[in-house]
Amino acid sequence: MNALLSLLLTWIALQASLRRDVELLIDGGVVVTVDPHGTVHDPGFVAFRGDRIVAVGPAREAGAFRPRARIDAKGHLVMPGLINTHGHAAMTLFRGVADDLELMDWLKNYIWPAEARNVNADFVRWGTRLAAAEMIRSGTSLFVDMYYFEEEVARAAKEAGMRAVAGETVLDFPAPDFKTAQEALQYTDGFIRRWKKDPLVIPAVAPHAPYTCSKETLLASKQLADRHSVPLLIHLAESRDEIEQVRARHGTTSTAYLQEIGFLEDRVLAAHVIFVTREEIDLLARAGVGVSHNPESNMKLGSGVSPVPELLAAGIAVGLGTDGAASNNNLDLFEAMDFASKLHKIHRLSPTVLQAREVVRMATVGGAAALNLEDQLGSLEVGKKADLVLLDLNRARAQPLYSVYSQLVYALKGSDVRSVWIDGKPVLRDGRLLNLDEPAILEKAREFQRRIRASLMPAQTRP
Amino acid sequence: MNALLSLLLTWIALQASLRRDVELLIDGGVVVTVDPHGTVHDPGFVAFRGDRIVAVGPAREAGAFRPRARIDAKGHLVMPGLINTHGHAAMTLFRGVADDLELMDWLKNYIWPAEARNVNADFVRWGTRLAAAEMIRSGTSLFVDMYYFEEEVARAAKEAGMRAVAGETVLDFPAPDFKTAQEALQYTDGFIRRWKKDPLVIPAVAPHAPYTCSKETLLASKQLADRHSVPLLIHLAESRDEIEQVRARHGTTSTAYLQEIGFLEDRVLAAHVIFVTREEIDLLARAGVGVSHNPESNMKLGSGVSPVPELLAAGIAVGLGTDGAASNNNLDLFEAMDFASKLHKIHRLSPTVLQAREVVRMATVGGAAALNLEDQLGSLEVGKKADLVLLDLNRARAQPLYSVYSQLVYALKGSDVRSVWIDGKPVLRDGRLLNLDEPAILEKAREFQRRIRASLMPAQTRP
Repeated sequence: MNALLSLLLTWIALQASLRRDVELLIDGGVVVTVDPHGTVHDPGFVAFRGDRIVAVGPAREAGAFRPRARIDAKGHLVMPGLINTHGHAAMTLFRGVADDLELMDWLKNYIWPAEARNVNADFVRWGTRLAAAEMIRSGTSLFVDMYYFEEEVARAAKEAGMRAVAGETVLDFPAPDFKTAQEALQYTDGFIRRWKKDPLVIPAVAPHAPYTCSKETLLASKQLADRHSVPLLIHLAESRDEIEQVRARHGTTSTAYLQEIGFLEDRVLAAHVIFVTREEIDLLARAGVGVSHNPESNMKLGSGVSPVPELLAAGIAVGLGTDGAASNNNLDLFEAMDFASKLHKIHRLSPTVLQAREVVRMATVGGAAALNLEDQLGSLEVGKKADLVLLDLNRARAQPLYSVYSQLVYALKGSDVRSVWIDGKPVLRDGRLLNLDEPAILEKAREFQRRIRASLMPAQTRP
Repeated sequence: MNALLSLLLTWIALQASLRRDVELLIDGGVVVTVDPHGTVHDPGFVAFRGDRIVAVGPAREAGAFRPRARIDAKGHLVMPGLINTHGHAAMTLFRGVADDLELMDWLKNYIWPAEARNVNADFVRWGTRLAAAEMIRSGTSLFVDMYYFEEEVARAAKEAGMRAVAGETVLDFPAPDFKTAQEALQYTDGFIRRWKKDPLVIPAVAPHAPYTCSKETLLASKQLADRHSVPLLIHLAESRDEIEQVRARHGTTSTAYLQEIGFLEDRVLAAHVIFVTREEIDLLARAGVGVSHNPESNMKLGSGVSPVPELLAAGIAVGLGTDGAASNNNLDLFEAMDFASKLHKIHRLSPTVLQAREVVRMATVGGAAALNLEDQLGSLEVGKKADLVLLDLNRARAQPLYSVYSQLVYALKGSDVRSVWIDGKPVLRDGRLLNLDEPAILEKAREFQRRIRASLMPAQTRP
């Protein structure tokens, strides 16, 4: 009996000791957890094992752990990886090809012809690699993508070590890869089957918008998403033009139309959501739809201002997005945070709207919630995936530091990011990309630029 | 006679040869001159001797020069140093101390008490050094300052190797240094005499605003500026509150009031200029007043949107400003460019407003013109001062590059700046500050932070 007790005690001690063994301990920095209490440990530590966070706390408790590797984060800020809830990664190859134009002039005379002439699997592969380099460098760990040749997007994300929610665009007119919605849906079905079990890539279904997809296409997309339990991505209420087109065709607004046909559900992540009424906001909230807010794209295209404070007040999960580089023209979520906060303040003529802490939540756990992934991602909490970012505070623009939230939203930049871990693995270390051949990517970007410029009409090239 | 001719020819040849001797040749980069024709040399070169630009042109012509030193700018962009037309440099020490508050709450309960308890010569010295580090790092070569203890601002600017237009704030209530406007004006007179001949610092007179200065103070300020031929800096039409206060006291708006009392003239540089009518814009244009547009501060404080397109259309010289770090919270003019362009697009719901090229002009030659310095500063042209900036294009966010203006406004960041020359001298070289002891400045910033935080009431500290 005594021998058994002794064995049991030894076993318990061994288990406890194993729990103290961690792979990596990041220690001594300002740890901004973005947990529900807004806990900040200054100084604090984060420990992970495999792909999971196993401990977070004040630095004085870090001594209890035996790490295989240790990062001294003194003078640094540690936070969850940022979540970019809307974009078209490969379009970075069109960054600056045409700007400051009316939306329809821009689309019809520049972007669509440029896409028709240039977008293929190779374009998407290199464009997504370029985007991944820019996103990792500015602290993004997950990006949501809607474009073409999504197999290439998924591969490039995996190669970069980034998380991606990847949805092949489904629409009722010919796209660079598929000529019909049916073909795109069929491809998406196979795409989902191939990637469903991947630890980094989450395949999705992405009907383009209520004005570019028929009722049949929208519902077939929804059924496919439901069948596989994957996210359903869509552009919604982005422009007045869209609202007018939908009204002319269906006698109601975009949002009410989607509700009527039974499209809205909690797996829907709707990008933009600018032109919505009070009642439509309630519709979206009741359906559990997530929203991606894209302040820079909406401003640069002069689209309109999404009623974000009302969306949040209605309990809708709102994340931040950059949209594609063709309409932004960068993929830096630190900028998106700064723009979001200042846009709504000037729009309401009130400095108390969208406070810094709320904006940091949108860029992290808000995005995770909009994707129904808040139990896995978006904050530094025990049991969540180890996606985190280390920012250098030892810089003129980072000092002094009174409020971490103010600093993150208004002062720090994507370029302050020094290291990034995704799924427990380092992808950026001390400013060096570990999985991407950046010089080769930049060289390819220049090559595409020459080819794309040559493909444009003379009237389409600008200084 | 032949001997004389020969001598003359030798002398001419020698002169020509001397003209070819230059101190520094920056060669092989994309040279964005911001000259009146918008000339871009790709690749191009800039040569300078002493404090002046002596040649600018396409790279193929660079061979004609014999430089003492040469910079290979391949893969880089060369542009004029940026001009920050409004700010309070030392307030960087209050960066993030209080945000997301109503203007009067922010001023009365946070900023003014913090200033009363903390601002002295030492504060201004270190705060301005911190600001100078951030500004040089983000490509600013000249900053306009309105604060207290301006002697320290002038010294810190000179020490950093930066240009500054420095104006001691004059107002009718007690400030951290002087208790009366008369004392401040007397100090300003001496300050101007001391700095008038400096190659970097331009002393100025800075009455605070129409609602904080009496008619006597405003006119005494103007007379002082006129007597010394120096700039006259003022806040103008920044808030509805100001407009109401001025109307209650003088029966008219801020701008009309300044016109009535004879204050407006071409040496006036007015910051903000949000609440102005069509007629007042014409008043400002006729008087030759320059305007400093501060998009980020105006947005963050929820102040209002300056009618910049109308100001420009009226022929007013408009420059960009960051305002102080307490209300922004950064001093990066690349951000100010991005915000300016996107703010006016969303405000007018039109993507064609404030095009990228125009915004780059505002941040450079527009600011110079607002200060009546466009014959000396603001563009890369022969005979102008050698103030220039080198940006690294070899980065993910900088590629591809179709339009230099789009890239500068929407994609590049202050952190892409690698080297800066001011008055022909290097102040930042390959990311290293040459004249400032950055580690010491950051350490001091942390020290001030502890002291300032301790000086605030418990209710004034926020996470």
